[in-house]
Amino acid sequence: MSEQPNRHLSKAAPQIAGLTPYVPGKPITELERELGITGSVKLASNENPLGCGEAARAAYAAAAAELGRYPDGGGFALRRAIAAHHGVEPEQVTIGNGSNDVLDLVARVFLHPGLESVFSEHAFAVYPIATMAAGALARVAPARDFGHDLEAMAALVNERTGVVWIANPNNPTGTWIAAEPLRAFLSALPEHCMVVVDEAYFEYVDEADYPDTTGWLDDFPNLIVTRTFAKIHGLASLRVGYGLSHAHAAELMNRVRHPFNVNAPAQAAAVAALGDREHVERSVAHNQQERARVMAGLDALGLDSIPSVGNFVTVDLGQPVGPIDQALLREGVICRPVANYGLPTHLRISIGLAEENDRMLAALARVLGQTSTPRSG
Amino acid sequence: MSEQPNRHLSKAAPQIAGLTPYVPGKPITELERELGITGSVKLASNENPLGCGEAARAAYAAAAAELGRYPDGGGFALRRAIAAHHGVEPEQVTIGNGSNDVLDLVARVFLHPGLESVFSEHAFAVYPIATMAAGALARVAPARDFGHDLEAMAALVNERTGVVWIANPNNPTGTWIAAEPLRAFLSALPEHCMVVVDEAYFEYVDEADYPDTTGWLDDFPNLIVTRTFAKIHGLASLRVGYGLSHAHAAELMNRVRHPFNVNAPAQAAAVAALGDREHVERSVAHNQQERARVMAGLDALGLDSIPSVGNFVTVDLGQPVGPIDQALLREGVICRPVANYGLPTHLRISIGLAEENDRMLAALARVLGQTSTPRSG
Repeated sequence: MSEQPNRHLSKAAPQIAGLTPYVPGKPITELERELGITGSVKLASNENPLGCGEAARAAYAAAAAELGRYPDGGGFALRRAIAAHHGVEPEQVTIGNGSNDVLDLVARVFLHPGLESVFSEHAFAVYPIATMAAGALARVAPARDFGHDLEAMAALVNERTGVVWIANPNNPTGTWIAAEPLRAFLSALPEHCMVVVDEAYFEYVDEADYPDTTGWLDDFPNLIVTRTFAKIHGLASLRVGYGLSHAHAAELMNRVRHPFNVNAPAQAAAVAALGDREHVERSVAHNQQERARVMAGLDALGLDSIPSVGNFVTVDLGQPVGPIDQALLREGVICRPVANYGLPTHLRISIGLAEENDRMLAALARVLGQTSTPRSG
Repeated sequence: MSEQPNRHLSKAAPQIAGLTPYVPGKPITELERELGITGSVKLASNENPLGCGEAARAAYAAAAAELGRYPDGGGFALRRAIAAHHGVEPEQVTIGNGSNDVLDLVARVFLHPGLESVFSEHAFAVYPIATMAAGALARVAPARDFGHDLEAMAALVNERTGVVWIANPNNPTGTWIAAEPLRAFLSALPEHCMVVVDEAYFEYVDEADYPDTTGWLDDFPNLIVTRTFAKIHGLASLRVGYGLSHAHAAELMNRVRHPFNVNAPAQAAAVAALGDREHVERSVAHNQQERARVMAGLDALGLDSIPSVGNFVTVDLGQPVGPIDQALLREGVICRPVANYGLPTHLRISIGLAEENDRMLAALARVLGQTSTPRSG
């Protein structure tokens, strides 16, 4: 933007200086215009390629009748539906403008200057951002096999630790933590320390030992479980997520929450989506089938992928990703470089429709062929 | 909720203890069910009774095609449209999940423990909430004739003042500040002090001396002007607002802003609404006509109203509002008591459709008759 130093920075709260200015990416339409292409395949944001279900779409359409009216600030129907879905009380639910909003509420309540948060290398980018925005210190534990090393994380917990962030499964690596070690980790945490288990990709996991920690809330009053409607429910455009916790933790987060943080069509569509198990099952089945096919296709290209239980695969290209990503863009295939996650040779590829995955695999084959063997002439 | 002390409060950031727990109001459907009524008239939230325009509605409907995709995190099209509308640069625009979100971003950037903010008695409730959530101290200047007393506000500004909040017009009183005194106030502010001019009700004002401060941004680098799509544009359900400021102030606020804070249909509908001047003009004309009629009707009931330039009238009932508000609810008329704004005998009444205003005036006449002359038998 401006090449001069920011004239207002000296007025800002101390933690603002440490935050990276947000550099907005171009929307696809702009990107396509610049590259002179059309019909790109977007495999960059771990969206549900099937979109949302019919029930959610109908609820969205019905909300058009009341666009002039404020949303329900208490999220009455949505909190009730979420609570019923999980067998908890509505007072345990904190709704968010995406689960990012809930993560930020956790940080605003349970972190402040002088406190620390703990998370894993390669974990979701919002953990350090929310931590720093609250003026707290981020302590990063080294990963083990690209996943959470719970022992290394436990070693960073001290009397200043306000929040421990755990992503299960993790984005962008697709790794997961089994019930037994996770439960042991939670049991050993000191009581002053809140722990977030971020289950944004929960529904995609098909592993016998994978835990549903929403069932552990009674055992761990310091546990906050987050979920989202952006992934399996196919409602990323509407921004709805939620946290489940002890009612007292929810009450504190609701003090900071904006009453109208989740807008009206988003609330309505989310309630409908929760009741549409068929769409969830269809989306899970699609993902399992196509994820296996994509992983096999990457393997056939001689590439190592991190074993993923999510709706994406993160693959090691064995070389800096930048030029390959640019070449894929020119082929009309948009994936997600993850150098900012400490993975400079990896590319995260969301599982799309079958024909989108085919296009991606074919484009990747061409691009890798081109970059390793430049065409003559 | 719970009658026990909050077990997690001791873990929370110090400023959280000072925040009032949010007590969600019941949605109208629940209220009606409890009272055994239907077809209530909602004059409680200063919404546009005409709703949104056709262009915005069409954009909303079109967004149904992409519910599974994340919004544009940079708000590219929306910021460009807002910038063009005001003749500023896109880098000067900060988009918010409602203008409340922008107000909160201002507080998170420019306030922190040790700093203070200044605002007027009877001013918008979000100013103290955002101030306290940032851990800063709220300094409240006494009002003059229910409006801002700029001299009293200036007297509270000191070296610790991070932000001055000004609502023009003010909610819930409907008072306004003329260009000359406002400009003099801004000119006298020390440079370390940011000043927000909240113009949520801008379009409703029809006063020759009322300023459009978006034209003053070049003169005052510490000025942040906020606007919303919730009022004149009739898009309250979608939560879109924005701030205009020096690009450096916007850059700092965008460091804290969640990239996807405004969801996709909200961005699309807002762009369409900005271009629909006809709907704005129709809404302004309706409001002027009906506001005059409502004020005359209240006058005919012997009630004093605060002269309002907004889309609401705040009327002095001369007695505690609670029982009258309850009686109005039973009549199916929902207005907004404003005791929490230091106005315990006033009721804020939004301007509705003609028939809604008629129902409100008739119900108020009945209720006031009943409460002053209890029926015998």
